Amino acid sequence: MAPGVTSEKKTEDEQTSKDNLIHLSNPHLEKMKDDILYHFALGTGTHDFPALFGDVKFVCVGGSPSRMKAFITYIAEELGLGSLSGDYPNICAGTDRYAMYKVGPVLSVSHGMGIPSIAIMLHELIKLLHHSKCSNVTIIRIGTSGGIGLEPGSVVITKQSVDATFKPQFEQVILGKTVIRSTDLDDQLAKELMQCSKEINQFNTVIGNTMCTLDFYEGQARLDGAICSYTEEEKLQYLKAAYDAGVRNIEMESSVFAAICNLSGVKAAVVCVTLLNRLEGDQISSSHDVLVEYQQRPQKLVGHFIKKRLGKV
Amino acid sequence: MAPGVTSEKKTEDEQTSKDNLIHLSNPHLEKMKDDILYHFALGTGTHDFPALFGDVKFVCVGGSPSRMKAFITYIAEELGLGSLSGDYPNICAGTDRYAMYKVGPVLSVSHGMGIPSIAIMLHELIKLLHHSKCSNVTIIRIGTSGGIGLEPGSVVITKQSVDATFKPQFEQVILGKTVIRSTDLDDQLAKELMQCSKEINQFNTVIGNTMCTLDFYEGQARLDGAICSYTEEEKLQYLKAAYDAGVRNIEMESSVFAAICNLSGVKAAVVCVTLLNRLEGDQISSSHDVLVEYQQRPQKLVGHFIKKRLGKV
Repeated sequence: MAPGVTSEKKTEDEQTSKDNLIHLSNPHLEKMKDDILYHFALGTGTHDFPALFGDVKFVCVGGSPSRMKAFITYIAEELGLGSLSGDYPNICAGTDRYAMYKVGPVLSVSHGMGIPSIAIMLHELIKLLHHSKCSNVTIIRIGTSGGIGLEPGSVVITKQSVDATFKPQFEQVILGKTVIRSTDLDDQLAKELMQCSKEINQFNTVIGNTMCTLDFYEGQARLDGAICSYTEEEKLQYLKAAYDAGVRNIEMESSVFAAICNLSGVKAAVVCVTLLNRLEGDQISSSHDVLVEYQQRPQKLVGHFIKKRLGKV
Repeated sequence: MAPGVTSEKKTEDEQTSKDNLIHLSNPHLEKMKDDILYHFALGTGTHDFPALFGDVKFVCVGGSPSRMKAFITYIAEELGLGSLSGDYPNICAGTDRYAMYKVGPVLSVSHGMGIPSIAIMLHELIKLLHHSKCSNVTIIRIGTSGGIGLEPGSVVITKQSVDATFKPQFEQVILGKTVIRSTDLDDQLAKELMQCSKEINQFNTVIGNTMCTLDFYEGQARLDGAICSYTEEEKLQYLKAAYDAGVRNIEMESSVFAAICNLSGVKAAVVCVTLLNRLEGDQISSSHDVLVEYQQRPQKLVGHFIKKRLGKV
């Protein structure tokens, strides 16, 4: 754990400097001539990273590629940077692992579902931002989640990302050994986002803990998977214990997202809409149109935040 | 752990019967009127599952949606079931979480990257096969991996899927508690696939253990991620210890794949090509054309297996 702790300290120092660069906690990278970001189908030997990405200040990430394309289209219009064709090319067109779009200072990247999938993307994203010499970058995950005790459609800004035992930590396996990492997120950024939600005043938003699980069915106490060995009472008992620990929603990426952003000295936030109230059911059965509108809520909130930061509100 | 063990016993009994149906280890499902498979955008209330999928005997799954489309195109030609248009519709067109294609008795489904992503797909796939009243189904994962001590392009048929400490087990978190599940795969099926590789005789194939990790960079001892706290010597020591434990390749889905197929009474195999030899490097730097050819190898092997099973060889 020593190297991880060292990196986090370095990061804090850097955050006090004016130009907050991306911190790479990996001494081996200096020795590499080229760096291939395989899952982005991009490489330093084939692409001019500073020219392509040097002006990026906001990175928004989310599971679904089509949602991240919808977000870039939305933010382009909001910032007055819309393309004449109305289309935005996928920067990662050479692969179907992730999709990436850019408009002005905003990068929008998909990450698939689950901790391993977002972790691959984040390793390559952090390297991309470093190779591009980006500074003062804010990364926000805009996603979907299951809510606990909230009206469906509510938005949760994550205070702490906790594991399935409600501890604010992420277990990373390195060379077969488990290392514990902090899942702290930026308090100030969460408050700033909450203020944005108040300003747009279109939907219920709360700051709360987010439980990050490795599984959607058994891992989130659902009764409707192919496998289930517990009763409805045991399920409700577990979800109520989560609520009592401050958990307001459940998703599958926030813990490693917080851990990697922490170690890289990047301010980060998680803003997820809740598609259902898990105390009332397991199946996501709202109509397509209702779910589409819900999924636009984190986009609207973060869109307002970006406009405000850029002095366009 | 008791319920899991019970299910596995039932499964063995079922496998001796002539019509091996899909086993659902979840008593709650009987009580549900409709079942929405949210991540497939399919539901029993809106789709006639037996009519759509009742004849499925082979399910092939892999990470990349475009690779799974390429596979259905290939197998359609091989089985003489090619469509006139040369195109195959995505059955899960209502979502971008997974892609699904079907030709005759073959279903081809993408699963994204990592254990959580394939687990969501498998829960919904097992329910789909059950609702469709499918029998005698074989599921094969055709994927990519990093090899250990093998010439790149070699294909590994998994004997046992092991974790990062080389144990043949999968840890499932249920209601915050960890349950250990078996990752056994079907020995006979692995041997049958090895025989197919000998018959087509186009590339090196071995039967070996497959290490399944939760991470691509630190979890697989890579030196080229955004974060790395170990030396090159420690990396090689770890990979050599894996080799000594019988590990011939590393990927990110096989353990939960084996565990869920086991509990559902479905015969399963994992056939992955190795894109590089991890004892010689970390970056996947072969040319696009070489990588494309490598990725066709599991498809060719499994294509031959399906043709043979259907008496078309």
